[in-house]
Amino acid sequence: MGENDNSEIIEHHVEEEMEKKGTRSRTASSSFPGSVTPSDREGHSGTQSSHRLLAYSDALISIIATVMILPVAHTKLQGNDEELRQSVQLLLSTKIAVYLMTFLIVTVAWAAHIRLFQVIVRIDDCLALLNLACMMLITFLPYTFSLMATFPENILGILLFCGCVMVMGVIQSVIVVYAFSRPFLLNEQIQISENLTVYKHHILKVIMRVPLMCFLASIFSFILFQISYVLLAIVIFLPYISRSLKWCRSKAIGQVEETPDSILFYTFLPEEPLSKDRVEAFSDGVYAIVATLLILDICEDNVPDPTVVQKQFGGSLIAALQDYGPEYLAYFGSFATVGLLWFVHHSLFLHVTKATRFMSMLNTFSLAFVGGLPLAYQLTHEFPRNSRNELEAIQISCVIIFFAGIFQLAIWVVALYNEQETLHPYVRYGGREHVFMLAKLSLYPLVALGTFFLTCILSQFSASIFHLMEITVPFAFLVLRLLVRGGLAMLRLIFCPDRPDQGSVVEEEDDETRVPFNALVT
Amino acid sequence: MGENDNSEIIEHHVEEEMEKKGTRSRTASSSFPGSVTPSDREGHSGTQSSHRLLAYSDALISIIATVMILPVAHTKLQGNDEELRQSVQLLLSTKIAVYLMTFLIVTVAWAAHIRLFQVIVRIDDCLALLNLACMMLITFLPYTFSLMATFPENILGILLFCGCVMVMGVIQSVIVVYAFSRPFLLNEQIQISENLTVYKHHILKVIMRVPLMCFLASIFSFILFQISYVLLAIVIFLPYISRSLKWCRSKAIGQVEETPDSILFYTFLPEEPLSKDRVEAFSDGVYAIVATLLILDICEDNVPDPTVVQKQFGGSLIAALQDYGPEYLAYFGSFATVGLLWFVHHSLFLHVTKATRFMSMLNTFSLAFVGGLPLAYQLTHEFPRNSRNELEAIQISCVIIFFAGIFQLAIWVVALYNEQETLHPYVRYGGREHVFMLAKLSLYPLVALGTFFLTCILSQFSASIFHLMEITVPFAFLVLRLLVRGGLAMLRLIFCPDRPDQGSVVEEEDDETRVPFNALVT
Repeated sequence: MGENDNSEIIEHHVEEEMEKKGTRSRTASSSFPGSVTPSDREGHSGTQSSHRLLAYSDALISIIATVMILPVAHTKLQGNDEELRQSVQLLLSTKIAVYLMTFLIVTVAWAAHIRLFQVIVRIDDCLALLNLACMMLITFLPYTFSLMATFPENILGILLFCGCVMVMGVIQSVIVVYAFSRPFLLNEQIQISENLTVYKHHILKVIMRVPLMCFLASIFSFILFQISYVLLAIVIFLPYISRSLKWCRSKAIGQVEETPDSILFYTFLPEEPLSKDRVEAFSDGVYAIVATLLILDICEDNVPDPTVVQKQFGGSLIAALQDYGPEYLAYFGSFATVGLLWFVHHSLFLHVTKATRFMSMLNTFSLAFVGGLPLAYQLTHEFPRNSRNELEAIQISCVIIFFAGIFQLAIWVVALYNEQETLHPYVRYGGREHVFMLAKLSLYPLVALGTFFLTCILSQFSASIFHLMEITVPFAFLVLRLLVRGGLAMLRLIFCPDRPDQGSVVEEEDDETRVPFNALVT
Repeated sequence: MGENDNSEIIEHHVEEEMEKKGTRSRTASSSFPGSVTPSDREGHSGTQSSHRLLAYSDALISIIATVMILPVAHTKLQGNDEELRQSVQLLLSTKIAVYLMTFLIVTVAWAAHIRLFQVIVRIDDCLALLNLACMMLITFLPYTFSLMATFPENILGILLFCGCVMVMGVIQSVIVVYAFSRPFLLNEQIQISENLTVYKHHILKVIMRVPLMCFLASIFSFILFQISYVLLAIVIFLPYISRSLKWCRSKAIGQVEETPDSILFYTFLPEEPLSKDRVEAFSDGVYAIVATLLILDICEDNVPDPTVVQKQFGGSLIAALQDYGPEYLAYFGSFATVGLLWFVHHSLFLHVTKATRFMSMLNTFSLAFVGGLPLAYQLTHEFPRNSRNELEAIQISCVIIFFAGIFQLAIWVVALYNEQETLHPYVRYGGREHVFMLAKLSLYPLVALGTFFLTCILSQFSASIFHLMEITVPFAFLVLRLLVRGGLAMLRLIFCPDRPDQGSVVEEEDDETRVPFNALVT
């Protein structure tokens, strides 16, 4: 590559650095062209940047969302008795329901937290402590779900849940009132706006909506508890459903909903930007905890008892550990899968310039399946080899991996619909990394789909082979760039044989991408 | 406070924002005055900022370091049989040893990872995948410790551990060689330096030191396995010991060790800066996982079985849950403690401008005790009320909290020794927040110490009262500022009654702190 090419890449780097440095302030004011710098406002002794508080909250919320897969994965599935097996399956489905409900409601709470702290950009000690109280209640929610799932006809679980949500609503309102009484804590655009009180009332109204629904649900629970569940389901799914519907309508009719100029936050539009930093931090947390849960199982279950080793294996530890061989393979295979799904996510968000609510929703779905991977790991090594169950376990693993990958691909597809705003020029249609990104994103869904159909055709398929496949996928990523280059060159050779080489093509693309990114957006 | 005061605070804010934005590039080049901007160098297609890779690695390492407390906390301590109790205690001490060893070795690996990626500041796909392979091996280390602790006389655990470390050394060497073959991935200061190969050989030499020791250990394990353990202990503790000794000597004699100008990284000096961002991210991860492990226990253990509720409590869920009352209290108390220790840590690092190796070491010790909190939680609610064991459990909790807090205080004390470089003017001697910071940092050690002596004096002390105390501490933090202000005002009134009011004192302090921070450092 020539000198010309290098200078263009330097521009890319400058932009990357700029992005990295300015992300926090940029995301907070991204919807406002020409915003003032965060330090133009007057301050107060003891105010702090909220950066680390948010990072800690993201870590807490992502772990609490994911860790509920542990009770699911720890459910023992063995049992020769048919009746016992049915009761175990009931227990398992209950626990899976708890996991999914926790994941959904926690991510809803997390989205609300993001939006709150896009308005409040600086904190002081008091806000930090209030936020910690909020976190304490969020981490308590999974327990209320466990109660609800185990005793669906007892209203105590509902009441506890509604109580937590209502207290959280009160705390959040206190946070908003406190922050608006000290305007230097707020986003600059709100600080300088004339109608501070309008903002305050709008935000309070949005925040209090969920606690009010919960209050209704807790009252109805005394009359007819089924209605409470319906109400709670509405609370959880309403934002998702209304967002998807609105998005579909806006895409179908092309009609863009108008927001009043005075209210720029809390719009509930699918295009509303969510802090990309925080979406990344949350995803990192989920991937990290999933990767770690695997080794926790290994350490708890796969250390043989010294007396057993002495008696059954004549003191030979190696012989005793040979029994666990497939589990190590399963561990490395699963870790490779989690790591590579993170890698694909990382590559994708490197080229995403703005995360919208809709993209964040798809990301949540992808993460919910990633969180299911410990279950897949548990299933694939639990059953005796070459049994019918082993085949089913591999199929379940494939389904989980497929959906985790396909939702990542969906994020990109959604981003492409609005590529001028949400994607880096490199990966837009015709960008130099476009095809490579597509290949990266579709590798896992394709491999999972292929394996799934392979298990349908073959009557026998060993879990060990499956895990070996998982371990070899990283090498596929290493050669992917070569494959894509080779494939593209071949396509060019076939369809445009008059073009001398691909160097000129690359330069052409450079001309397009060399336009500064901001100029393209505005 | 007057107009004058406000302008000074704005300066504080500007600086804070600058710090936040420039941390990544600043820490990487902090030892080099007048460094060039990161984007002055030529780049290459596919290079990426390493920010998110490092955040993910921090999350993984912090979780793996902390999660090994789970097997410790899950060990059931009950048992009326004296012999059984002894075997349980042996098991418990084994598991605690595994936890501490994991925590230490993982933090050593983490420090090596920080230093490696202070040299390599940009990544591409290949480096990202190599780093993931490294992470996979790090997460496997706890299992090798479990084997070592369960079968101390079997060399398999040692061999596995040494194998992992050697493979990690090879991968890290490959990373270094790869990065030096593509200099645009490196730190700018190394890029422009003449002696690239000197750097490369120095770094490779430092990296290969540990794998070589492990190679020796694995050979000795065939001859006399005790020597291997000694060698491994040296590997783990040598950096800590040599650092502490060197630091003590330099403080005692005042002699500062000279480093050759050509080698600025990998110096092993206690003053060597470690990325403050990453120290914060690692600490956040540990605090978050500890807070979450508590609710996991609640969800797994405290949901009663439906049949038990039907038979024993006549279907009354509330009656069944009343048994668990103390556990909820224990949960909220422990969460409040973890949250507030994080809050103190957050307040401290907000005013720390540079994290040195020695501070990071003290931070690690503090975090190791924080990681022990789930054990304290498990102990305080496991024993029958008003028993001798309950008192001991509370004392253990106090000891854990005391050490977690006292090491945080130690970080600050060490920072004060070199306050011009490591602390923000606000919290230095005479700074306006100095006394308040001291009060914040010493609150937990004092409370823990007080409770400990209270339990020694009183023969009975309920765990419920202990947890109620834990929950009330946040309010102490809220009124702490008022208390400190009141106390200072009273001291001034007693010792300097001729001074009219404290306003003038504050202004005097302001004059000192208004000097731009950078001017003070250089």
